[in-house]
Amino acid sequence: MNNAVRLEDIDAFTLRDYLATGSGVAMVPVGSLEQHGPHLPLGTDTLLSGRICQGVAERIGAVVAPAIAYGYKSQQKSGGGDHLVGTTSLAGASLTAQARDLVKSYLRQGFRHLVFVNGHYENYQFLYEGIDLALEECGIGSDADRSVLLLSYWDFVTDETLAKVYPEGFPGWEIEHGGVLETSLMLHLEPARVDLDRSPSGPPARLPRFDRLPVVASRTPESGCLSSPQGADAAKGRLLYEQVVADIAADTAAELSLPDAVRL
Amino acid sequence: MNNAVRLEDIDAFTLRDYLATGSGVAMVPVGSLEQHGPHLPLGTDTLLSGRICQGVAERIGAVVAPAIAYGYKSQQKSGGGDHLVGTTSLAGASLTAQARDLVKSYLRQGFRHLVFVNGHYENYQFLYEGIDLALEECGIGSDADRSVLLLSYWDFVTDETLAKVYPEGFPGWEIEHGGVLETSLMLHLEPARVDLDRSPSGPPARLPRFDRLPVVASRTPESGCLSSPQGADAAKGRLLYEQVVADIAADTAAELSLPDAVRL
Amino acid sequence: MNNAVRLEDIDAFTLRDYLATGSGVAMVPVGSLEQHGPHLPLGTDTLLSGRICQGVAERIGAVVAPAIAYGYKSQQKSGGGDHLVGTTSLAGASLTAQARDLVKSYLRQGFRHLVFVNGHYENYQFLYEGIDLALEECGIGSDADRSVLLLSYWDFVTDETLAKVYPEGFPGWEIEHGGVLETSLMLHLEPARVDLDRSPSGPPARLPRFDRLPVVASRTPESGCLSSPQGADAAKGRLLYEQVVADIAADTAAELSLPDAVRL
Amino acid sequence: MNNAVRLEDIDAFTLRDYLATGSGVAMVPVGSLEQHGPHLPLGTDTLLSGRICQGVAERIGAVVAPAIAYGYKSQQKSGGGDHLVGTTSLAGASLTAQARDLVKSYLRQGFRHLVFVNGHYENYQFLYEGIDLALEECGIGSDADRSVLLLSYWDFVTDETLAKVYPEGFPGWEIEHGGVLETSLMLHLEPARVDLDRSPSGPPARLPRFDRLPVVASRTPESGCLSSPQGADAAKGRLLYEQVVADIAADTAAELSLPDAVRL
Amino acid sequence: MNNAVRLEDIDAFTLRDYLATGSGVAMVPVGSLEQHGPHLPLGTDTLLSGRICQGVAERIGAVVAPAIAYGYKSQQKSGGGDHLVGTTSLAGASLTAQARDLVKSYLRQGFRHLVFVNGHYENYQFLYEGIDLALEECGIGSDADRSVLLLSYWDFVTDETLAKVYPEGFPGWEIEHGGVLETSLMLHLEPARVDLDRSPSGPPARLPRFDRLPVVASRTPESGCLSSPQGADAAKGRLLYEQVVADIAADTAAELSLPDAVRL
Amino acid sequence: MNNAVRLEDIDAFTLRDYLATGSGVAMVPVGSLEQHGPHLPLGTDTLLSGRICQGVAERIGAVVAPAIAYGYKSQQKSGGGDHLVGTTSLAGASLTAQARDLVKSYLRQGFRHLVFVNGHYENYQFLYEGIDLALEECGIGSDADRSVLLLSYWDFVTDETLAKVYPEGFPGWEIEHGGVLETSLMLHLEPARVDLDRSPSGPPARLPRFDRLPVVASRTPESGCLSSPQGADAAKGRLLYEQVVADIAADTAAELSLPDAVRL
Repeated sequence: MNNAVRLEDIDAFTLRDYLATGSGVAMVPVGSLEQHGPHLPLGTDTLLSGRICQGVAERIGAVVAPAIAYGYKSQQKSGGGDHLVGTTSLAGASLTAQARDLVKSYLRQGFRHLVFVNGHYENYQFLYEGIDLALEECGIGSDADRSVLLLSYWDFVTDETLAKVYPEGFPGWEIEHGGVLETSLMLHLEPARVDLDRSPSGPPARLPRFDRLPVVASRTPESGCLSSPQGADAAKGRLLYEQVVADIAADTAAELSLPDAVRL
Repeated sequence: MNNAVRLEDIDAFTLRDYLATGSGVAMVPVGSLEQHGPHLPLGTDTLLSGRICQGVAERIGAVVAPAIAYGYKSQQKSGGGDHLVGTTSLAGASLTAQARDLVKSYLRQGFRHLVFVNGHYENYQFLYEGIDLALEECGIGSDADRSVLLLSYWDFVTDETLAKVYPEGFPGWEIEHGGVLETSLMLHLEPARVDLDRSPSGPPARLPRFDRLPVVASRTPESGCLSSPQGADAAKGRLLYEQVVADIAADTAAELSLPDAVRL
Repeated sequence: MNNAVRLEDIDAFTLRDYLATGSGVAMVPVGSLEQHGPHLPLGTDTLLSGRICQGVAERIGAVVAPAIAYGYKSQQKSGGGDHLVGTTSLAGASLTAQARDLVKSYLRQGFRHLVFVNGHYENYQFLYEGIDLALEECGIGSDADRSVLLLSYWDFVTDETLAKVYPEGFPGWEIEHGGVLETSLMLHLEPARVDLDRSPSGPPARLPRFDRLPVVASRTPESGCLSSPQGADAAKGRLLYEQVVADIAADTAAELSLPDAVRL
Repeated sequence: MNNAVRLEDIDAFTLRDYLATGSGVAMVPVGSLEQHGPHLPLGTDTLLSGRICQGVAERIGAVVAPAIAYGYKSQQKSGGGDHLVGTTSLAGASLTAQARDLVKSYLRQGFRHLVFVNGHYENYQFLYEGIDLALEECGIGSDADRSVLLLSYWDFVTDETLAKVYPEGFPGWEIEHGGVLETSLMLHLEPARVDLDRSPSGPPARLPRFDRLPVVASRTPESGCLSSPQGADAAKGRLLYEQVVADIAADTAAELSLPDAVRL
Repeated sequence: MNNAVRLEDIDAFTLRDYLATGSGVAMVPVGSLEQHGPHLPLGTDTLLSGRICQGVAERIGAVVAPAIAYGYKSQQKSGGGDHLVGTTSLAGASLTAQARDLVKSYLRQGFRHLVFVNGHYENYQFLYEGIDLALEECGIGSDADRSVLLLSYWDFVTDETLAKVYPEGFPGWEIEHGGVLETSLMLHLEPARVDLDRSPSGPPARLPRFDRLPVVASRTPESGCLSSPQGADAAKGRLLYEQVVADIAADTAAELSLPDAVRL
Repeated sequence: MNNAVRLEDIDAFTLRDYLATGSGVAMVPVGSLEQHGPHLPLGTDTLLSGRICQGVAERIGAVVAPAIAYGYKSQQKSGGGDHLVGTTSLAGASLTAQARDLVKSYLRQGFRHLVFVNGHYENYQFLYEGIDLALEECGIGSDADRSVLLLSYWDFVTDETLAKVYPEGFPGWEIEHGGVLETSLMLHLEPARVDLDRSPSGPPARLPRFDRLPVVASRTPESGCLSSPQGADAAKGRLLYEQVVADIAADTAAELSLPDAVRL
């Protein structure tokens, strides 16, 4: 279905050629290993960010780097909490260090721009810090020619798409964990890994406006999902995927002044 | 105006008495030293989180700890960026370490609950991580009697309040930096420190859906504000302050099962 | 070809069942993104350690965790050096932190034993340290019921196998980077990702008995390989793979007292 | 009483003007939250270093930065010990990191010199290290135009002043915790926060010539003070304050070649 | 001259016997590699703390551990500064980590008490922090049976001794670097390593009451000594050595309730 | 027996002269404090690496730095394990930090090349990382004039020597802990510190091909040695020492283009 170039699949000499002649852009998917309810696999976030990277990479002639497959601790209000079986997490400093090292290592090789595509809410600030530290250590303070972009893919879902995906009103990103958006995307991209028969139902989780630590485990719904996936389908997933990929590709190409057809 | 007990003002023996007989709750304000446009002082976030802590502490019989007065790096999409004069920031690990140490140190003394009230968006995840690390180091894994709450005060602004503060529609938290909310609160709480004559005008900043590092400085409005404070007034500030303080106090008292009248 | 259970593919409730009834063992592949000459892909180490984990997991009823896909800095005497294009590396502390966090997080969920299978020489000591720190932090000082095993897969190649793979004499592990062993394994497991036509030839690299930093780049052969893959073939790869997998499975099952048939 | 410019009170544009035309000096108070006996508040060190910074800033045209309000662990021989209620402390690395970040952040904005005024004995070496690391990271190895000064305010008390404050002989700095010096200064600067009626009496603490950890709690006097404040009065406090402020101002102005009248 | 038991000289089985039957005390010398003027060797601090440990160990039946031979950065006001040739230093965190690890490792083996004897002023606070962190990590919060003592040997010089060593008045510890005290001790203990003919003369260094970083190199006397060693002799060294060793031994034996004759 | 110049024995001015006129090379021995069976002292690794440094330094006109006398955690398969009495270890990060600081500090003074001679297997990777970080922080990316060499001395034992030392066949480095090689070297260099009467006998330890943590203590032979020292003698030690020293000296001199006779 998808034929973007993955770094792990090419050899070093092919990469040298790419860096010499191509756009010098690498997409870096960032996900998690995290419970996503009884109907979605633990690797959902890594899978979705990886597939979005591939879609974007095809359009803008980027390569796709191996994913950061473990993320920051799941938080109760966005992912159910870090106490749940299946949720396997890194400390903030560990994720920051990994992001910092990757930025330094890729830039050293000759990549000009990196695009981190985040698929796990809790990662964002720790990735940001890693990128910032790397640029400081590399002495890149203001440089049109080399940059790192960081984004969470759901920030590219337009209001128009939201209206179609949630015809009865969008309940808010904060409870979209194992819900309609992720389930629809999975039904479109990886239907064999979704078991809709196990979908939880019921109203969205009602969580406090504060975080409490240690978490009160009973606040997380038994399913681990913060809202029900009911209403999810592959058509919505396709709409979401195509709109988001198109928008990230367009924004990235414009931001980085990429030529129209830079393919490997 | 406000007579909550501040830890720096009491002596150690008075504190011992409080811990023996009171609710054992400390409010910890967290702010920043950050540019907030030409009309607000650099200490706005620290000042506001401190005043909210005082208001809550009065109602629930808590003490107020000295503020964490320097925050995580300002990000372009929420605070204009860390490159601006006046913005003085900590690395993520430094803020996390400070939060971790404070939690450990306060709990060791006999405090039962801490409430971190955040006034600078960028701090949240690093505070969360510090709190989580402290509880792990202290071996507090599930304990009804000791806990730490973390919140950002704007998450307690109700829709009803928003409708009054932004009669023409709420433009979104992401560009509320030096805008109507913060300016109104300052006009109510610290009018002498606001210079409305210097308020910037113009439309809200339009920033990309991604973060780019190094930042493109020209994307931040010249004023440093992401939206105009026009429309701010002290009455709105009073409404915001009183509603938020009341709600945080109510939620906290209920969550921590505080008696009705626990005053120092 | 292979149907071991991968953690990223199952949901949290299935995992709970596995932990309640199965052996509670997770295999953790550790690789690298590193140049491997013109004929092998950058992801060779991650791919091989992952495939070996799958083979072992099938035999002992373990699950396979997502791989650690970036490794410690490539060293000139074992991997050509960290200055080469395609080689993308973590600092030692970053790899150690990641291993520490994963051990803590998996043990917390209820896994009883972890088996880290290393495919990149340089990783070993940093993984060891991460595992040791995690056990110290968890307070597991001597515990027959919970443990972590760490191994590099080539340490399980028997002399008998070596004699068949290198009929003219084994040149030593230290220069086996992109050579006969890795190439044979890849030809057996992932023939589509090998391009034997690009195989470098020539004598093995002759490197000093010390490490020099900064590296003298000219000491690494132009190909990036420390010995030629000539003589590699899929039959040798099959022999290597099957012997190594069988031995790791047998040793692990005996060490951890696993029942004969513990399948998911 | 005091009208030095505090950074938290001014806006970013006023600061820009100051940096363009003024001396570019920021005073940074460093204190602690630490028990100081039954007669002095927990914030004594922060308050005193802050007031001294204000006094100096007025004389040399500097601005005053928000204080570092939490310090390194109280040690038994200088502050009674870190086990006492009210004493709230940072690990050494946390304080060092904070100092490092502030130096980097202030110098980046255009400040030319920083003066850290320490009011808590235990902080000194960790502040020194933070400053040194910051200058190394900034690449400032020898630079007449940019520098950081670090001092503890009591090192500026002259023998003449000491003779007046301690007419029966100075007992030594090592047991001046909650004693005559700090109490006198507080009586001069913040009389409302001193409760002389609660002053402990009795001979100075006699502590070993070594530090023992864990501390033997019974060695610290019940009051938490290492010497009695008896003999303290506001006149001595005024003498101390004025002499110290004058000397720090004179030394700093000379060291940094500040013009005579550089006011904001 | 000296026959205390040094850990590096005994085998593991002899140590086991000692720990089973002896006092279980290890002395840990801490020094530096630091310029000490033209007449004293770079290893002066390590040598002196080591010899004092040996003297004490003989008296109290302790063993002597290998020295920490590199110390924290030399500071201008106590050691001339870290910019001088010969001065080879560790960052604060590195020294703290080393002390922490040694405390944990020695206590794990069965040692009951450790006595760190510091010979380099700048080390003290970083050693203290390492010891404190180790005890926290080991969960030793209040334990009469296990402890760590930390001291700087010059704190044990009595006024009576000082009066004999400095008949014209003691100039203060702060400028005793390469001066009469250290030179006398070396003349007594290691005369072959002292070259009195190269002794610098002249008045003591006059340094500011603040630290300035980066250091103004010209403030350090050309010799690197902060005061002249003139007046040093072996008899004074013997007096100093014997008095200090006797006092440390007596205080330690009393503090740790050691029996009168506990020899290996 | 040996008169290489040791840094701790010379003064700063003599060192300045050396750096101005000599080769500017410092040898840095790295050892451990680790059980080595009943017949060898705990300091064996530090002693041997130190003596080898001295031998090499004499030949190439280098100076010898104070040793790093504590090493990384002993591992069961190479040193018996970190749980044994006498074995006193650093965390990986602590050793890395120390190596990093020393490289930075020596290069800053004017040394041109450093040669780390490792005598404890487990140290190697952590030293490598420290050296690499130091060069990165110093901005030395490719520099013929300044470099750091790192080696383990046993990698210089030639096959010819091995055949003489192990006439019945070399059992492999992995079990050479307290065995023929180390014991022979000690009998040649420090016979008074060896007690051959206590030598353990018996077959070599048979350890698994994996590391297990926590270690199964019973796998380490009671003696702590992984192979018997029987067959060790001083003549073999002399052969080993002289061959290794000569080879390290020759390789180093050639690598660093040292003149034939550069003596202090």
